[in-house]
Amino acid sequence: MKKILAELLTIGDEILYGQIVDTNSQWMSVELDKIGAKVVRRTTVGDVESEILTAFAEAEKRADIILITGGLGPTSDDLTKDCLAQYFNCSIAIHEEALAEVTEFFKSRGRELTDLNRQQAALPTACDKITNALGTAPGMWFNKGDKVFMSMPGVPHEMKKMMTDFVLPRITKKYQLPVIYHKVIRTVGIGESFLAEKIADWENALPPHIRLAYLPSLGEVKLRLTGFGTSLEQLEAETNQLVEKLKERAGQFIYGYGEDPLEVVIGQTLRDRKLTLSIAESCTGGYLSHLITSVPGSSEYFLGSMIPYAYEIKMRQLGVKPETLEKYGAVSEPTIIEMANIVRAKFSTDIGVATSGIAGPGGATPDKPVGTVWIAYSDKYQTVTKKLQLSKDRMLNIRLASIAVLNLIRQSLPK
Amino acid sequence: MKKILAELLTIGDEILYGQIVDTNSQWMSVELDKIGAKVVRRTTVGDVESEILTAFAEAEKRADIILITGGLGPTSDDLTKDCLAQYFNCSIAIHEEALAEVTEFFKSRGRELTDLNRQQAALPTACDKITNALGTAPGMWFNKGDKVFMSMPGVPHEMKKMMTDFVLPRITKKYQLPVIYHKVIRTVGIGESFLAEKIADWENALPPHIRLAYLPSLGEVKLRLTGFGTSLEQLEAETNQLVEKLKERAGQFIYGYGEDPLEVVIGQTLRDRKLTLSIAESCTGGYLSHLITSVPGSSEYFLGSMIPYAYEIKMRQLGVKPETLEKYGAVSEPTIIEMANIVRAKFSTDIGVATSGIAGPGGATPDKPVGTVWIAYSDKYQTVTKKLQLSKDRMLNIRLASIAVLNLIRQSLPK
Repeated sequence: MKKILAELLTIGDEILYGQIVDTNSQWMSVELDKIGAKVVRRTTVGDVESEILTAFAEAEKRADIILITGGLGPTSDDLTKDCLAQYFNCSIAIHEEALAEVTEFFKSRGRELTDLNRQQAALPTACDKITNALGTAPGMWFNKGDKVFMSMPGVPHEMKKMMTDFVLPRITKKYQLPVIYHKVIRTVGIGESFLAEKIADWENALPPHIRLAYLPSLGEVKLRLTGFGTSLEQLEAETNQLVEKLKERAGQFIYGYGEDPLEVVIGQTLRDRKLTLSIAESCTGGYLSHLITSVPGSSEYFLGSMIPYAYEIKMRQLGVKPETLEKYGAVSEPTIIEMANIVRAKFSTDIGVATSGIAGPGGATPDKPVGTVWIAYSDKYQTVTKKLQLSKDRMLNIRLASIAVLNLIRQSLPK
Repeated sequence: MKKILAELLTIGDEILYGQIVDTNSQWMSVELDKIGAKVVRRTTVGDVESEILTAFAEAEKRADIILITGGLGPTSDDLTKDCLAQYFNCSIAIHEEALAEVTEFFKSRGRELTDLNRQQAALPTACDKITNALGTAPGMWFNKGDKVFMSMPGVPHEMKKMMTDFVLPRITKKYQLPVIYHKVIRTVGIGESFLAEKIADWENALPPHIRLAYLPSLGEVKLRLTGFGTSLEQLEAETNQLVEKLKERAGQFIYGYGEDPLEVVIGQTLRDRKLTLSIAESCTGGYLSHLITSVPGSSEYFLGSMIPYAYEIKMRQLGVKPETLEKYGAVSEPTIIEMANIVRAKFSTDIGVATSGIAGPGGATPDKPVGTVWIAYSDKYQTVTKKLQLSKDRMLNIRLASIAVLNLIRQSLPK
């Protein structure tokens, strides 16, 4: 079977000047890899017509599918559409369906369509329109013999929605791609190298047609098994057997499979078991509540939070005893126990969790350096606490402490 | 003066497969931009000899300086060094100074030099060695006529140290570079196309040596002026004059300049004016508090938040009147006014802000579709409310509503 080769072409001075980070390319690479297309090159050029046209021609020589992002804004420095029209030797005209979509987009936001926005509905006549459900610039799909050029906005969430809803399914339909089966196993609470040591013998015994990749990200490590073959059913069965063996070695760190992050898995468990949650978070400053409420439907199990950032608010609003704060300080086990118990009682929830720590860079004391964080879990059966010693970086501490609380909930829920 | 053009060439399958994010390119772009070299292209190729050699030849045609990262590890899939030797038509031999350095590197860490590591001190004879102070793979500098190829490791901190200590100074010494001045103007509360229309005459009157770029990101638009010349002082003066003219047209949308995002600017204002803030956030679920507390030192002005996610918590814990909730609903102007006023009073702060809305995907009613959000600002002089009609996307609504509150604070602070 012929391999389908892909090239990612990013257009925009703001990338070349380093004013924004290109996060799109990595996401697209992963998604293309999943459907069995091989990315052979990434190219970034500036907002210069000749460079864009040259890049099109070069990419066409190397790849079967050329995925272009950027340069679709309504302003004069955005040249992608004009260049595509030139390259495909066609004119640009108002696309009625695209116009209806962009009009509706503005209407739904109670805003008037400007002339500049109307021009975003003008497309090269040689392309198929790709609907932009989250923005005003439509995407474009151009066939050229066996090859395809696709153009999408550089705004990440707009591009991702187009890729998922339209581009990836259409590529899969157009080309005969090898059968690939992916299984992602999600772990939390263990570092990459410790996990690797723990499962070394299992990894070494993997058959040659099934590959393992470690995908560490903030606070967790994902393992991805990728099987290549001709039968999806067979690959799936083989992979599932391997996962069963993996569970024997590292089962307590596995919290889920596939796409769902920890906050979704926790939410599903709380919903299924009809348990409610409240939060008293200090050093995490709202990030923990944000993780929980980023999940659609979280209002079914999450009732609310208190963020008692200041000392007085911990006492007067949450109700931590002054003598506890005075004797042990805000970052201490006695305080965190009170915080979790009080928020659970006040908010009348099954579970209460709490955080208090030194996120940094300020606030450290000799015995409580930056990165010292206490977390607690409380339900009617037990109160569990944990002391974390994290990093010197404020944002990292906020994120790692929040993930640690999610993991504490996972480990502590009544059986 | 001739422009010095640069190309960034990244080598490695792990980048193309999306297994790691390329953060090097952005950093290098910014540093090169600062010294007045213009990055005209970024290219990423895999660990394939023919592709690497082709990329060298292509880059040489386009750019004066070619900065290569990656492919310098000790394992067999690392091909950069062999390819460079081929390209520069020379052999590879142990470089005595490099060998001394790598030996010393291992010695200082109490480790033995392996044969594999010894090979890292073997370099193409045509290059100048670049010391790697933080790792084992030396960098390489090749002159070719007026052009230069540099090869560095892909490990970010090793590359950065080489760039700072050796590469950037040597480029500055070798080439006569133009003076470049950048000024970033940050706006909020107006879309890119509306802003573009508003300032079209100002933009059209820009002198040819000063360029404008629109850099839209979530909820805001940055404008970047880039001036090219021979005197930094003159460019700075010219740019500042242009900014003054811009203020006449769009001053009310400008919240700052340079690197600081809105939450940092707001924080600085609150700190300077000794004002304190509390938050009652419902639909934003903690994200607004997270933005505020992501800023180091925010505990100086931010006292705390209540996240009354559930209906009962809005009544029982925050204290919104049951009759208000019953008559108007949680997503209404009367409710949001109470929320902002109550949290300000309860937390004894100068300012209270509040959010309540339908983030989606659930929870919509016929007269309150997904994306309907009320926000409010309260201080002792006034209570200001605003109704937003945002998108269908939950995360986008959470983020946009939070930024809208920050902007409301900016606009409403007592003069």
